[in-house]
Amino acid sequence: MAGKNVPVSPLAPKKFPKMPVVEGVAFATAEAGIRYKGRTDVLLATLAEGTTMAGVFTRSKCPSAAVDWCRAILAGGKARGIVVNSGNANAFTGLKGKEAVRLTAEIAAKALKCKPEEVALASTGVIGEPLDATKFNGVLADCAGRVDGAVWQDAARAIMTTDTFPKGASKTFKVDGVPVTISGIAKGAGMIAPDMATMLSFVFTDAAISAEALQACLSAGVKDSFNAITVDSDTSTSDTLMLFATGAAARRGQAPITQVKDPRLSAFKRALNKVLLDLATQVVKDGEGARKFVAVTVEGATSKKSAKRIALSIANSPLVKTAIAGEDANWGRIVMAVGKAGEPAERDLLSIYFGPYRLAEAGGRDPAYDEAKVSTYMKGDRIDIRVEIGLGRGKATVYTCDLTKAYVEINGDYRS
Amino acid sequence: MAGKNVPVSPLAPKKFPKMPVVEGVAFATAEAGIRYKGRTDVLLATLAEGTTMAGVFTRSKCPSAAVDWCRAILAGGKARGIVVNSGNANAFTGLKGKEAVRLTAEIAAKALKCKPEEVALASTGVIGEPLDATKFNGVLADCAGRVDGAVWQDAARAIMTTDTFPKGASKTFKVDGVPVTISGIAKGAGMIAPDMATMLSFVFTDAAISAEALQACLSAGVKDSFNAITVDSDTSTSDTLMLFATGAAARRGQAPITQVKDPRLSAFKRALNKVLLDLATQVVKDGEGARKFVAVTVEGATSKKSAKRIALSIANSPLVKTAIAGEDANWGRIVMAVGKAGEPAERDLLSIYFGPYRLAEAGGRDPAYDEAKVSTYMKGDRIDIRVEIGLGRGKATVYTCDLTKAYVEINGDYRS
Repeated sequence: MAGKNVPVSPLAPKKFPKMPVVEGVAFATAEAGIRYKGRTDVLLATLAEGTTMAGVFTRSKCPSAAVDWCRAILAGGKARGIVVNSGNANAFTGLKGKEAVRLTAEIAAKALKCKPEEVALASTGVIGEPLDATKFNGVLADCAGRVDGAVWQDAARAIMTTDTFPKGASKTFKVDGVPVTISGIAKGAGMIAPDMATMLSFVFTDAAISAEALQACLSAGVKDSFNAITVDSDTSTSDTLMLFATGAAARRGQAPITQVKDPRLSAFKRALNKVLLDLATQVVKDGEGARKFVAVTVEGATSKKSAKRIALSIANSPLVKTAIAGEDANWGRIVMAVGKAGEPAERDLLSIYFGPYRLAEAGGRDPAYDEAKVSTYMKGDRIDIRVEIGLGRGKATVYTCDLTKAYVEINGDYRS
Repeated sequence: MAGKNVPVSPLAPKKFPKMPVVEGVAFATAEAGIRYKGRTDVLLATLAEGTTMAGVFTRSKCPSAAVDWCRAILAGGKARGIVVNSGNANAFTGLKGKEAVRLTAEIAAKALKCKPEEVALASTGVIGEPLDATKFNGVLADCAGRVDGAVWQDAARAIMTTDTFPKGASKTFKVDGVPVTISGIAKGAGMIAPDMATMLSFVFTDAAISAEALQACLSAGVKDSFNAITVDSDTSTSDTLMLFATGAAARRGQAPITQVKDPRLSAFKRALNKVLLDLATQVVKDGEGARKFVAVTVEGATSKKSAKRIALSIANSPLVKTAIAGEDANWGRIVMAVGKAGEPAERDLLSIYFGPYRLAEAGGRDPAYDEAKVSTYMKGDRIDIRVEIGLGRGKATVYTCDLTKAYVEINGDYRS
């Protein structure tokens, strides 16, 4: 588990970003003792009245009870609070899991003086162990009495499991000339793969946007961010990404956005996509055991979808990932991964680049390829792999990390 | 590479099996110095006149030049020889690769006094490096002069790459009251996943069977053997499984089988399937870094295909495989892998067994589950995982191994 002699990822940002308060959002964290000792494991977020919400969730056929709950309340479109606990995913816990979810929402609703259906829930940690929601009794009421809009880093820390650093990202921009902020937190580490890719991420804005428009922005934005990352091809039963809009900017003169086609959404989407990509790549950079951040770009595929499938085949290949861990520019394994993707590709048209260096072209090794330069490149902590398929115009980039012995170590004794 | 301080897999059979001569087949091996020093790296097999052949190959969209060659000559249906080299896969080598294949076949044909199109070829090892086929000059003629039908183990050793033990299997049975043998060799280790699952396997029989009937038997037999194993979900560009029938048993009274529906094929198929499964599971037992052999059986899926997909999702999950390496009966990760398979499954109907122990049923932990007994079970070197989906009658078993630090080590410096 986190902190158990696992050093902070060498790919971590130097420090947690400066994140301004998002008007209408505040946080408190607590130690409920669900699994971890001596660290916070519960996050309560309070949301101003009128806050709209949107969400995308794991595509697992066996989602957690909390995911079922959030999907159900999304129809209401309004939220007043969020409760996240780490240490226990409350997944595959049968009827007890449903009861735990209901009880958590009721305890939170009482503390926040709202309806249970206005409380979003997420749980992360071990699967299959019943969650004792009575532990939230008192804890959430206490949290509600001391929320603070500035404690982003505390909030990000409370939701960590095997993460080695807290993850946050923020953008400020203007809508109708009014400054608006989008800020979010995320946690990830293992079991990160599309779709969804993160275990948990919560993003907040003070913009005034209807639930419907918000959902459209989030569903579009997730494709090239959280659904374009992979650590180990495994997909959590709890993956949750939610976006909340408090609407506080309306009081400063932003006319509410209610239509999906409102042109003012372009600026919002641009900023949102940057925040989502920032958070998503931080998740990859904290992939269990990761020592190198890898961006795989596939160009010239027959479609964007095909490009993404090939890129994922490369990014998920254990042989590619171990080669990168070994600082070996093993382009033969890239060919292998292109071949197994099952997408249109012709061996003799492929070109493969590592960073600025072309290693292979037209079905064979590039005669001009300089092994010494590439060896130096492979020692860096960011590796860009680019594959030109040569069949069309489809392009996609996915992000992953290398596969190291530390990954095996961390996951081989997660429960011990 | 093999032998570089990598100990023999603890899952290896105690010794190479006793394998009788298959009349009409003989072998010789040599050191051509293609990549390895001080070990054999070329195998020549000679086949009696009239030998029929069948084959199944990688589904990679970027197959090796040798795979292209074998697919093309399969139409002829007859073979007189096989040349296999280890150390260089001659894959993604462009026009040079095609030329190397053609030259190898010509050198072998001269040595065997047959047509180039009667020589099957396979190469295994590093991808992307041109193969210098002139190294076979002289070597193959020398081999042809000293072939021996008894040297199965030598043959199996010459085709090894990162394998830690040679793989062979044999069955003798009767057709028309005439004793008939099926014997085969295989090599695998990494990059093992359907479809195809082995890198290379060659199986021989002295039965008299037409190429068409032989192909039908092989195509059917591969499904529950070589296409039901996975080491790391990666698929080689060179995967080749070929079956040769010399027809020598005809001289001892076996009436040739020419029809796909000949009822005498049942006994042949039964024996063939046993040999294929034996070889395929040996490949898994020599998975790079493997310490545990794992059989994953999924029952009660909506179809056999669905059962196999779910079983493969479990068998390929890095989180499941690292948990097994850690001797952790982490059934939560099994649920995760069932969920991500995308096949029909209902969380609250799932039951999960490790060996004889039921850990989960009907959406939650089995209250009767005894953690101490399961912990002892997990220390064994064979782990049977069984999942009951509870929706239908589809059933499938796939075979895999655990994911250990040694896998990362072996593949992180394969080329260094």
